[in-house]
Amino acid sequence: MKHIVIIGVGRFGTVIAKDLYQKGHEVLAIDQDNERVQKISSQVTYAVQSNFTDTKSLETLGINEFDIGIIGIGKNLYDNLAASHILKKHNIPYVIAKAKDKLHGELLKKIGVDKVVYPEKTVGSKVAEEIYSDE
Amino acid sequence: MKHIVIIGVGRFGTVIAKDLYQKGHEVLAIDQDNERVQKISSQVTYAVQSNFTDTKSLETLGINEFDIGIIGIGKNLYDNLAASHILKKHNIPYVIAKAKDKLHGELLKKIGVDKVVYPEKTVGSKVAEEIYSDE
Amino acid sequence: MKHIVIIGVGRFGTVIAKDLYQKGHEVLAIDQDNERVQKISSQVTYAVQSNFTDTKSLETLGINEFDIGIIGIGKNLYDNLAASHILKKHNIPYVIAKAKDKLHGELLKKIGVDKVVYPEKTVGSKVAEEIYSDE
Amino acid sequence: MKHIVIIGVGRFGTVIAKDLYQKGHEVLAIDQDNERVQKISSQVTYAVQSNFTDTKSLETLGINEFDIGIIGIGKNLYDNLAASHILKKHNIPYVIAKAKDKLHGELLKKIGVDKVVYPEKTVGSKVAEEIYSDE
Amino acid sequence: MKHIVIIGVGRFGTVIAKDLYQKGHEVLAIDQDNERVQKISSQVTYAVQSNFTDTKSLETLGINEFDIGIIGIGKNLYDNLAASHILKKHNIPYVIAKAKDKLHGELLKKIGVDKVVYPEKTVGSKVAEEIYSDE
Amino acid sequence: MKHIVIIGVGRFGTVIAKDLYQKGHEVLAIDQDNERVQKISSQVTYAVQSNFTDTKSLETLGINEFDIGIIGIGKNLYDNLAASHILKKHNIPYVIAKAKDKLHGELLKKIGVDKVVYPEKTVGSKVAEEIYSDE
Amino acid sequence: MKHIVIIGVGRFGTVIAKDLYQKGHEVLAIDQDNERVQKISSQVTYAVQSNFTDTKSLETLGINEFDIGIIGIGKNLYDNLAASHILKKHNIPYVIAKAKDKLHGELLKKIGVDKVVYPEKTVGSKVAEEIYSDE
Amino acid sequence: MKHIVIIGVGRFGTVIAKDLYQKGHEVLAIDQDNERVQKISSQVTYAVQSNFTDTKSLETLGINEFDIGIIGIGKNLYDNLAASHILKKHNIPYVIAKAKDKLHGELLKKIGVDKVVYPEKTVGSKVAEEIYSDE
Repeated sequence: MKHIVIIGVGRFGTVIAKDLYQKGHEVLAIDQDNERVQKISSQVTYAVQSNFTDTKSLETLGINEFDIGIIGIGKNLYDNLAASHILKKHNIPYVIAKAKDKLHGELLKKIGVDKVVYPEKTVGSKVAEEIYSDE
Repeated sequence: MKHIVIIGVGRFGTVIAKDLYQKGHEVLAIDQDNERVQKISSQVTYAVQSNFTDTKSLETLGINEFDIGIIGIGKNLYDNLAASHILKKHNIPYVIAKAKDKLHGELLKKIGVDKVVYPEKTVGSKVAEEIYSDE
Repeated sequence: MKHIVIIGVGRFGTVIAKDLYQKGHEVLAIDQDNERVQKISSQVTYAVQSNFTDTKSLETLGINEFDIGIIGIGKNLYDNLAASHILKKHNIPYVIAKAKDKLHGELLKKIGVDKVVYPEKTVGSKVAEEIYSDE
Repeated sequence: MKHIVIIGVGRFGTVIAKDLYQKGHEVLAIDQDNERVQKISSQVTYAVQSNFTDTKSLETLGINEFDIGIIGIGKNLYDNLAASHILKKHNIPYVIAKAKDKLHGELLKKIGVDKVVYPEKTVGSKVAEEIYSDE
Repeated sequence: MKHIVIIGVGRFGTVIAKDLYQKGHEVLAIDQDNERVQKISSQVTYAVQSNFTDTKSLETLGINEFDIGIIGIGKNLYDNLAASHILKKHNIPYVIAKAKDKLHGELLKKIGVDKVVYPEKTVGSKVAEEIYSDE
Repeated sequence: MKHIVIIGVGRFGTVIAKDLYQKGHEVLAIDQDNERVQKISSQVTYAVQSNFTDTKSLETLGINEFDIGIIGIGKNLYDNLAASHILKKHNIPYVIAKAKDKLHGELLKKIGVDKVVYPEKTVGSKVAEEIYSDE
Repeated sequence: MKHIVIIGVGRFGTVIAKDLYQKGHEVLAIDQDNERVQKISSQVTYAVQSNFTDTKSLETLGINEFDIGIIGIGKNLYDNLAASHILKKHNIPYVIAKAKDKLHGELLKKIGVDKVVYPEKTVGSKVAEEIYSDE
Repeated sequence: MKHIVIIGVGRFGTVIAKDLYQKGHEVLAIDQDNERVQKISSQVTYAVQSNFTDTKSLETLGINEFDIGIIGIGKNLYDNLAASHILKKHNIPYVIAKAKDKLHGELLKKIGVDKVVYPEKTVGSKVAEEIYSDE
């Protein structure tokens, strides 16, 4: 069993949270939006409403003891970078973050994020591939 | 060579547009935002600024003669549905659309979209899978 | 006595709700805006504040047991389509929805709505008719 | 042939404008939004972009020589009232205006509007009637 | 002692409310903004938070028994007109309203307002007068 | 003949500008909003579109050679204070400014404004006075 | 020990508040934003949520008995000027205020502020100096 | 003579730009806002309007040949980080950036910025110091 903290539970973060909790992992979900916290609360181990860039609050949640951190924040790119940085600073061994584009991904890498994923690009490429391999 | 029309060239639509154009397909890119049209213009066959839900304008572009339609509209879900409908109504044989969530995907299916993709969900599931298969 | 659910009680939904309740029908009024719910509560059987696109909440209200569904949502066209879809999916035999224009009406038809009404167009046509038949 | 001025060509004003122009009447369409003016220009006698409450501009258009005035302004209720007033002040014999609700309709009557129509209420009542007369 | 109702207690309404209450009149102050209601509460007979255009609420306050009504609403011109109309409809013998400009003043007159005042114009004229009479 | 500069030509500034120009004075009207500048241009000696707080631009207009300065700026209180200051700094002998309330008036006095007027308060007091002197 | 009141505890006001409190001074921190008040409450003598321009509220806090007043308000320049004025009016011997630019600084001086600081300009100049003295 | 590029010419960037240009350095000023570009154009070597995060545009300006880069962007923290990253990526030897707070400064350091300055904190500390050293 791994200890996973997910910051930002929109569509992306929610899918990961549910899947990992169902596989028996301990999942802490954090979001600034209380409605999202309520919605996911029954499908994760803990769900907490907290400011993404408030280091103190995140420390109180004991984030330094988690194995994996996932950044699902999509709209506010600064918060996405800041939350990634706070997790790495608290020595979370493996941090995965969602990036909007190449420039954003480069910034995440500089900050120390271990794995950057690009949903729009990945799925877009797959769609293109299916089309031209269809000949 | 296929004739492909892409409505909405944000990150998702852009990746598809570039990939298919490089493989030798004819690609028409349409967006409401002129800046996006300018940016993609050198990487597709044609790039046009047009209102997504203006049936007349889309007809003028001859959309009924395309083989494949791709809906990359992400922010305005009504426009996403309306553009999908207009393409199917003009007898485009194969229409692919990006959906935000399950409910949105169901609506796209009802409208006649041939393939619905969910970038956030697909990539989120893959991230979760890599974590629990890593044991 | 019929069981009628009305989603969205602005001017249009309110007129229908009041008229049917006064004729002895059972009327459930649903709106996202609590002020509207308060205002109509004494003139319908039940009035409930709920998110239009939250399938779970609508199921809790037992919407699958109603005979007729009316969609009065006007501003957010996506919510108008999504609520229409949810009602048809829960097997409500007869669903009536208000459409903004022809394109919107076509989408409602595709989704399975049984009757589409166009207040602006209907009353506009009547005004025009009265003018030219006045000669 | 009558001379008709229509102020505000959204859905409601547009339907009336088209219908009357096709029946051979002279129709002047006025809107603040240039896109709407462009869109209707080929279906009316004249289409002009003008501020609704600018008495001077409306006078320049010779509004005092029209037989019938129609107020299709929907969003800004003050503009709806002000335009109605300006038409009556310039002695247009018959002015028809669209009202949002009862209170709005009372204000239009006080200002001298000859006929007030309520699209949402009229069509809502008809929908209710069809339901209970269906037994 | 007169019974005076003041709808809208910004700067204009507040000055009138205070002056009349100090002279021994009964003053009812109504505003949509609760902060304004709190602020004036100790300087009038009654202060109530209520929606300007909600006829029912205004009736509950017994507005039909007042001698004088004053409309101090400045920002929302429709609410200014609607509140003026509601007071006249409830037979308040003398209604005074603040107007933004000439067109607005004409509308107030049509609605039946007994006296229209124009703060900006009145004080502007006085300033101009003092300048040219100073020679 | 006096040389008068009026900064901010809303209702208040416009009344003063017109009155003084008709009496034969030289009037320079300045506003940030080009539509207002157009509207007043035929009724003053000069009308110029300029930023209120841009000292350089105001100097270019030769404001130091005017006899009287009038500040009609109403919405942005900082711009009202800044423009007042710039006029006094350029040695205009007599500056009149419109204030929102007592606190604002005190600030204008500190800055050196020669005369402060309070339209809302002045006209409000007059309305109150007419009511209680009516007994 | 000095008695210091700090109005506006963003970054600038916060640094001053903390430093002075740690040196043993009595520090009263005032802000309109309750979150900021909560955040600083454990690092100052008193922290109070209050409107910057509400003279009454500031008087209730006994601001006239303080030795030094510091204005840290940054976004709303009118509030910055008004709070400065209220402190000087209540005879605080020494008032320091943060200014955005030269014009703003001149206004603060006119109002009677004893010392004006320009963070952006001061630190910008230092950066420039370090660069050209580096040769 | 050094070659200096300044991205973001608000108060902070402007002070640096002017000072260095007056000392004989070559200064390129870049801002997204055309008004700011116009304003500074006569006080620097070159002034260009460009998107902060558009790598292509910045490359076209030859930013890789500058000795020093200064990031004056204040409002949009993501743009501040992205522009810093682009300069370091193009091998500018020395990059200085303005930070809002400690967290922001840490992110800039991770990205490779050579010197981070904190105007609000620096000047705030100096104000505090002057107060307690005054005893």
